[in-house]
Amino acid sequence: MNKNNCEFNQEKITAIGDYVRYLTLMSIQTSKSGHPGMPLGCADIGAILFHDILNYNSEKPYWLNRDRFVLSAGHGSMFLYSFLYLAGFPFCLDDLLNFRQYKSITAGHPEYNIKEGIEVTTGPLGQGIANSVGMAIEGKMLGSRFNKNGYDLFDYSIFTILGDGCHMEGISYEAMSLAGHLKLDNLIAIYDDNSITIDGSTSIAFTEDIQARYEALNWHVEHADANNIEETFNKIIKLKSMKGKPKVLVLKTTIGKGLDKLAGTNKIHGAPAGIDEIAYFMCNSKLKEFFAKKYNAKNIDEMKKSIEKSLAEKSPLFENEEVLAYMKESISENKNQYNNWVEMLEQYKNEHKEEYAMLENLEKGIMPSVLRDALINYKISKPTDATRNIGADVFSICTDKMLSIVGGNADLVESTKATVKNDKYIEKSDFTGRNIAFGIREHAMGAIANGIGANKLFIPFTSTFFVFSDYMRAPIRLAALMNIKHLFVFSHDSIYVGEDGPTHQPIEHLNSLRLIPNLTVLRPASDMEAAFSYLYFLENDKPAVIILSRQNMEESVIAKSFDREIAYNNFKNGAYIFHETNSNKADIIIIATGSELGISLEAAKKLEVDGKNVRVVSMPSMEIFANTDDKYRASIIGTDEPILFVEASSSRGLNVMFDKRITSIDIEQFGVSGPADKVAEYFGFTIDNVYNKAKSIIK
Amino acid sequence: MNKNNCEFNQEKITAIGDYVRYLTLMSIQTSKSGHPGMPLGCADIGAILFHDILNYNSEKPYWLNRDRFVLSAGHGSMFLYSFLYLAGFPFCLDDLLNFRQYKSITAGHPEYNIKEGIEVTTGPLGQGIANSVGMAIEGKMLGSRFNKNGYDLFDYSIFTILGDGCHMEGISYEAMSLAGHLKLDNLIAIYDDNSITIDGSTSIAFTEDIQARYEALNWHVEHADANNIEETFNKIIKLKSMKGKPKVLVLKTTIGKGLDKLAGTNKIHGAPAGIDEIAYFMCNSKLKEFFAKKYNAKNIDEMKKSIEKSLAEKSPLFENEEVLAYMKESISENKNQYNNWVEMLEQYKNEHKEEYAMLENLEKGIMPSVLRDALINYKISKPTDATRNIGADVFSICTDKMLSIVGGNADLVESTKATVKNDKYIEKSDFTGRNIAFGIREHAMGAIANGIGANKLFIPFTSTFFVFSDYMRAPIRLAALMNIKHLFVFSHDSIYVGEDGPTHQPIEHLNSLRLIPNLTVLRPASDMEAAFSYLYFLENDKPAVIILSRQNMEESVIAKSFDREIAYNNFKNGAYIFHETNSNKADIIIIATGSELGISLEAAKKLEVDGKNVRVVSMPSMEIFANTDDKYRASIIGTDEPILFVEASSSRGLNVMFDKRITSIDIEQFGVSGPADKVAEYFGFTIDNVYNKAKSIIK
Repeated sequence: MNKNNCEFNQEKITAIGDYVRYLTLMSIQTSKSGHPGMPLGCADIGAILFHDILNYNSEKPYWLNRDRFVLSAGHGSMFLYSFLYLAGFPFCLDDLLNFRQYKSITAGHPEYNIKEGIEVTTGPLGQGIANSVGMAIEGKMLGSRFNKNGYDLFDYSIFTILGDGCHMEGISYEAMSLAGHLKLDNLIAIYDDNSITIDGSTSIAFTEDIQARYEALNWHVEHADANNIEETFNKIIKLKSMKGKPKVLVLKTTIGKGLDKLAGTNKIHGAPAGIDEIAYFMCNSKLKEFFAKKYNAKNIDEMKKSIEKSLAEKSPLFENEEVLAYMKESISENKNQYNNWVEMLEQYKNEHKEEYAMLENLEKGIMPSVLRDALINYKISKPTDATRNIGADVFSICTDKMLSIVGGNADLVESTKATVKNDKYIEKSDFTGRNIAFGIREHAMGAIANGIGANKLFIPFTSTFFVFSDYMRAPIRLAALMNIKHLFVFSHDSIYVGEDGPTHQPIEHLNSLRLIPNLTVLRPASDMEAAFSYLYFLENDKPAVIILSRQNMEESVIAKSFDREIAYNNFKNGAYIFHETNSNKADIIIIATGSELGISLEAAKKLEVDGKNVRVVSMPSMEIFANTDDKYRASIIGTDEPILFVEASSSRGLNVMFDKRITSIDIEQFGVSGPADKVAEYFGFTIDNVYNKAKSIIK
Repeated sequence: MNKNNCEFNQEKITAIGDYVRYLTLMSIQTSKSGHPGMPLGCADIGAILFHDILNYNSEKPYWLNRDRFVLSAGHGSMFLYSFLYLAGFPFCLDDLLNFRQYKSITAGHPEYNIKEGIEVTTGPLGQGIANSVGMAIEGKMLGSRFNKNGYDLFDYSIFTILGDGCHMEGISYEAMSLAGHLKLDNLIAIYDDNSITIDGSTSIAFTEDIQARYEALNWHVEHADANNIEETFNKIIKLKSMKGKPKVLVLKTTIGKGLDKLAGTNKIHGAPAGIDEIAYFMCNSKLKEFFAKKYNAKNIDEMKKSIEKSLAEKSPLFENEEVLAYMKESISENKNQYNNWVEMLEQYKNEHKEEYAMLENLEKGIMPSVLRDALINYKISKPTDATRNIGADVFSICTDKMLSIVGGNADLVESTKATVKNDKYIEKSDFTGRNIAFGIREHAMGAIANGIGANKLFIPFTSTFFVFSDYMRAPIRLAALMNIKHLFVFSHDSIYVGEDGPTHQPIEHLNSLRLIPNLTVLRPASDMEAAFSYLYFLENDKPAVIILSRQNMEESVIAKSFDREIAYNNFKNGAYIFHETNSNKADIIIIATGSELGISLEAAKKLEVDGKNVRVVSMPSMEIFANTDDKYRASIIGTDEPILFVEASSSRGLNVMFDKRITSIDIEQFGVSGPADKVAEYFGFTIDNVYNKAKSIIK
């Protein structure tokens, strides 16, 4: 077996496939939970991929030129765990038997952990194929930057199995459309075409002409019958070598293949097969002698009893030495491939010093200290501006100093201003640029960028109007769940969008993002806070959302000067004292975020004229502040002073739980269409209203 | 002009088209805000539609058999307002001139108001075409129920203009795929194919073969050049008569048509054209003599000055009597059509009494009192169950009594159980059923159901796993914004999903939905509360979300008996006292929702054994409770008693604002994979943990 010139061997593939079926059936039966249909249907193509096709090194799972395998149909997780076990990744038979158990590494759906061979978290349908498009873009970007004559450092492929569910989801269409546009020929999709979904035959809702769909999107299509293993093998070999387009193998499979009564039915999609069916499989499999021997069963009735006993006793799964030997061939050949690559890299290091250094920099991902200094001390020269413009300026400082930042917009560069200035767009013929025109495809944009970021070389950013974060909520959540360093830049915060009206005015979005675990949400109120927001994102290896304005900040906020190191320390606590009359106990504490800080500061000045003692707190990140210690929190928002909280967003419902000392100027209805100042006045976001409200609550 | 046998008249169409261009240009220039590109590019097809094709009666805008016009490219709102003015809907020239101004009826994007001819709110791209698919399904449902031999009561068509943005969005693909599957030949899409998006040429991101895309989805495709008005007209006539498939006219248009330098560029997409360009248009239009006369301008320089003056003085727009006369022909012919239909309905009433009564019932939308009684007194016979099962049972009582309820699942009937029991699925050949197999297309499902509900005859429901509400957040928001009576049934609440792991365990979703204005979010804790939840939805003309469990409720919660009318009154306040030791001041108040009520009640019993005085509050709807008066709220959650809030969801960040007397057992991290009871234990949702936590905070 040679990965570059492999020969077809039906016996080996069948043995590996049936062994994976065994592992799947027994593990799911033991855990009494899981989805056997897909692994059974796809075990043979899996065997072809993991035995003959994929380049990987399970001892060096982060190998940069490894082929990526993505199980977009994530519910078939036993498929992935079984093959990762066979391929030498850190899964053992006991892990498989512990499928879906508390604290087991074989979770219900694959959870992102490249160390274990899991390239991305999948399960929410359509995400995996969109992640794969991101990985393919990354592959092209790496190749265009680093491949040199005689040095194909990056020539890996992405193999993705997706099912009917992935196809029906709009995100897959969006992602495939962009993949076709960019002619990503390093992407090979395998469509597990089994004609079955949870509620029955796909024909009840899904009767597209799949070939025409793919061709319309500029993909190359091949077909195979999964029962014909040789044809499947040949088609995969053919697709791997084809250039010029992304490729798909439409593979006609049988869900639950190998079973008696459940094969081809929706009943095997998401429930254990049962002992009768497992016994049927074991007595009819190509490995039937192995099973007969191990389970000491001469016929199907004995097999049933034996399986029953094995389950009751939680007996370990049996190792199959023959299958392991086949896989060892592959693992060993893969190591050769890996060693060759490492050797090539060594030579490359000498011949292409500059590029090698660049690659090292990408791997280390260190932020230059000059960038930190620039951000810490950032000031705009104008008296004021909108934070979308300030953000664009700050971001261009970041992208100048960090070549790892790549990404783009959903057709709103002109509005959100988030772009890599002075750099190109990637195109089908040239991936050296750092900007990506995602098209008006927010959902795929988020997931594609997750795919780019999963490998931890490039730092992806994506951008659209804040209100349309609704279209990409699933990938935002998944970036947080996977802890991918992905920057979401959303402009046009709140009702200040003005004339575009309620469909374009985010109301509930700010708090609804704050609720997502492991996500940092930053709404800067000044040039300093904008620069700090980007700095905070770059310094922390996790996803963040930066929310920017179309409206200008108050000049007095921009003008205020701070010791910047102290200010950044305060900023990192999520909230800090922006202004106070004096250090005596305040008559009122006004808390604000974003552009509401300015009107709050101006209102405070008016209150001071009235002789009031006022503290103004800026809160760029509520959820960071919520996690500081009691003492810090008390030092900022006091313990019994009245609080006026000013934020143009909804905390509807939850505000019933708020501290009685809090009065809010917020929004509990949808926005209205009109010039921004009129709309802001209508909703009470004016200096006068803040002043009057504050006055009314000071004791 | 005869709607059923109309003749092409280029002169009329051109005059109407150019007049709409004038209204658009001047209104947007006056408001200094708006999107002229689309209305200018599509004015002629608009003239064909509103003059020759559409059946409507602006005096009877709710006419059930009117043709629907949907502007999926909602940013082109001046297109719609201009034609609605010409068609006799309640828009006057001053309304147009007040475009996008505060409190004007000509909002930035079209806002749902059938009275004014606006069938749905559009703007978020792709929603309008998906709404249109819903309207087409509704049309087929009405036809299959009420059309009889000689009585084509419902034979209306839906005409939808959509642009590149709508096409790129995955939701449009999802919706079109279902439309093709169902062969909705009452749907005619018009693709405003102008090759321009905000960031430039569509070729930077969108190079699909559009014809192949549509054909893959089982649509019929025709092409026309918008500059060839006769061809455009003939193609629309042809498409209107074709049967068997949904249809699309790919119309090659020029964005900003009629302008000099800006035509065909992205600069005219979303900004006023400027005086020079408007003057150019007015001096080169087919209506140039009209403009010359009204603006008293003999040449382009005079025209510029005259326009400038007109804008400075906010002079009214000029009426064009010729164009109004053309449109009056159409309005009058449309009245004939309407009168014929009303006559037909009168005869139908006599001949088909039963169906007529059914139709009247649909229109009235009254809930039978027997249904109210059944829901008020609903009890399950088992000691306990999961609320998804209870909900299914309750829902079948509702659907039995109200034939207006239609809808379906995104391939999860087996799991969410939300379905119309004992009824069929709609199919391409038979729309008499009430169930819709939406396929795994959550985003389109939400928007299609909004389209079904917009007409206020049918009451749509949609259903999926709660965690996948993320995929349909935009249509949930739009249901709330439009105030469409749409029931969202989401099952598998929180971490109790268990083995499927964090991708399938909703954490932030509960509170993030509560934040959406005008949306009722209900998480019932018992059979009684489940029944009340559906009753509450049916009694109120607004959208609601009902969140159901996979896990069983505690038996003690199910067993507790209430005076049901009093209990429903309490329920309608969002929170109520479920249990208290006695009426003395409580040592602790435990607030819970859903299945957490059960463990809280059991913990309370243990506390009572310790001699504590405990109140347990059930809070099926936090945002309703938040809106009750101070007195009621104090009567439920007290004023200074310690509170333990038990809910398996995230209030991350916002909890920094919470009352100091509140201690929470909640979740601020993603879920984990494992059996539900283990996971619940890990997160502290056990009787013991609630008991211990409560004990620790009692003074």
